[in-house]
Amino acid sequence: MSERSGGWSVCPIPISRYPRVVMAHGGGGRIMARLISDMFRAAFDNAELNQGHDGAVLDVSAHAASGGRIAMTTDSYVVRPLRFPGSTIGAMAVNGTANDLAMCCAEPRWLTTGFILEEGLAMETLWEMVCSMADAAALAGVHIVTGDTKVVEHGRGDGMYINTAGVGLVRPGADCRAQRVEPGDAVILSGDVGRHGMAVMTVREGLEFEAEITSDCAPVWPTVRAMLEAGIDIHCLRDATRGGLASAVVEIAEASGTSIHLTESAIEVQPQVAAACELLGFDPIYVANEGRFVAFVPSRQADAALEAMADTLPGARPSVIGRVEASDPGMVALRSVIGGERIVDMLSGEQLPRIC
Amino acid sequence: MSERSGGWSVCPIPISRYPRVVMAHGGGGRIMARLISDMFRAAFDNAELNQGHDGAVLDVSAHAASGGRIAMTTDSYVVRPLRFPGSTIGAMAVNGTANDLAMCCAEPRWLTTGFILEEGLAMETLWEMVCSMADAAALAGVHIVTGDTKVVEHGRGDGMYINTAGVGLVRPGADCRAQRVEPGDAVILSGDVGRHGMAVMTVREGLEFEAEITSDCAPVWPTVRAMLEAGIDIHCLRDATRGGLASAVVEIAEASGTSIHLTESAIEVQPQVAAACELLGFDPIYVANEGRFVAFVPSRQADAALEAMADTLPGARPSVIGRVEASDPGMVALRSVIGGERIVDMLSGEQLPRIC
Repeated sequence: MSERSGGWSVCPIPISRYPRVVMAHGGGGRIMARLISDMFRAAFDNAELNQGHDGAVLDVSAHAASGGRIAMTTDSYVVRPLRFPGSTIGAMAVNGTANDLAMCCAEPRWLTTGFILEEGLAMETLWEMVCSMADAAALAGVHIVTGDTKVVEHGRGDGMYINTAGVGLVRPGADCRAQRVEPGDAVILSGDVGRHGMAVMTVREGLEFEAEITSDCAPVWPTVRAMLEAGIDIHCLRDATRGGLASAVVEIAEASGTSIHLTESAIEVQPQVAAACELLGFDPIYVANEGRFVAFVPSRQADAALEAMADTLPGARPSVIGRVEASDPGMVALRSVIGGERIVDMLSGEQLPRIC
Repeated sequence: MSERSGGWSVCPIPISRYPRVVMAHGGGGRIMARLISDMFRAAFDNAELNQGHDGAVLDVSAHAASGGRIAMTTDSYVVRPLRFPGSTIGAMAVNGTANDLAMCCAEPRWLTTGFILEEGLAMETLWEMVCSMADAAALAGVHIVTGDTKVVEHGRGDGMYINTAGVGLVRPGADCRAQRVEPGDAVILSGDVGRHGMAVMTVREGLEFEAEITSDCAPVWPTVRAMLEAGIDIHCLRDATRGGLASAVVEIAEASGTSIHLTESAIEVQPQVAAACELLGFDPIYVANEGRFVAFVPSRQADAALEAMADTLPGARPSVIGRVEASDPGMVALRSVIGGERIVDMLSGEQLPRIC
């Protein structure tokens, strides 16, 4: 917590009295009310949250005049461990849900948060994750407007699970869905892949590499907004989270009834991520990311899209990784570095448990 | 499941192959995709959900023209056991969140659902709870528009936890918040209290009474809508869930800086609920409800409010249970059946764990 700049580096719940979360922190009485007011409201402070009601009332009228569509999404976060190089469950809970809204061409605005805490969780850990959420929300420009806290008995959870749901304002004119993907579209990947999953796995397995692998967890809305403002007719966006780049692309191929042809050499993977994948037996295109997405745009706009995306996310280099074709509906093929072409399928089961 | 009328009484996931939830059901691959398409989409079927995107795009423009405010809320549900007389975790997850929207004078419209499933959960149980959600959503008039599924290892959960978040359309002109409660307001309770908590507890404790105690879990929007349509100037609404009627009223007294004087004899408690409370040592005004709320209205409109509320919820008899006064800001007093007056405080800790 030493790097916090917000001025609230000290946990506001007296640690001497409540060093750990107890069942009463979810009991609906005075102890829960104090946790909410002293910790959650203090950290997430904003006008909507401060209404202090069962729900938050949000004004969409100004927006509605120019379009009137909202996007709504949810994700639960059960990642283990709670912190790992480059991110935490708290930052993921904010960015992951905000990014799902961005994938609808919606500006992320409001989040809810539901905590399921395990009895015995260190109060300092809860505070650290709450600060992590507050920082991520500030960076992503979203407000956490209402929430809920439940506590389950020791052994019925795993530290903490977080659900966030989000509402965003869909940009007027945007029409972004798998059904719009068509032959001729260029497939753009927003940056290198495989970092998030490998960052979590190397911590879990206690592995060390010369260069640290850090999660790519970050807000992607600035990148999407730049594309929209450049007039790119985005046909579809999909973030490459659980199941990785491969599963995201297969889903789009199946939903659009097209085939998608990827070029392996165009897909950036950091050397240390490639090494970790090699060692643990994973294919980086199936590994989860938390700040990367694929965009399907008309090929004539591909260069303009790349230009708009450039420098919107530090360290990410967007590139065209493939092309949509009409033949073999639902198929995804990958041309390997040595020239062969192989069929890419969705994972049949799971590769990495509890990665997000 | 035998009483289902929707025509989908058979679990759509082949039980012979997947009798229980496995980690791969949350792994982001083919097995998860099948669970989503064959079970969740089949049961929750609606146009917004069928967009099949990361989030759902919702049109609020028609509404926005007449006001432009939405309400947003969330709750996680960790009740144990998953089914009990009168309701299930699935029905609670729909009604509880929809009711929080109603407490903002908002018509509940759209819900998200986040499942955290424990590895080993019987697939039939998941299906039963999903059907329960679908039925409750149909009854409450809400659509489940998007969702998320996570699976945690056996021993890291407890069957299933459900988070729902909701968005509703605030009725034009409504201004409902604790700060509007003022001296002279009548306090109306929408029905009898204590049933939900005692229904869960009696099942957990294996108790039997002559008359079964059933949860009051039900949608309250029809009651709120009737009040609004009758022109009642609702100052504040609060549902009496965790912490019960007492905690809800104390919260309002504190937030509004008024005192609230309740009359015990006006608070209806079913005889079997009173008996169970007596036996287990609970005070019914602290026991959780899932279909009851308090409304603060100008006293001159109290009779009109009662008239509007009548017959909107089968079996519930609304009544005036108290009055708001200016003296002793933040205090709640209860005049007992035998004439004495006692101070009512919020629970200090918790009374009933995992009740909602």
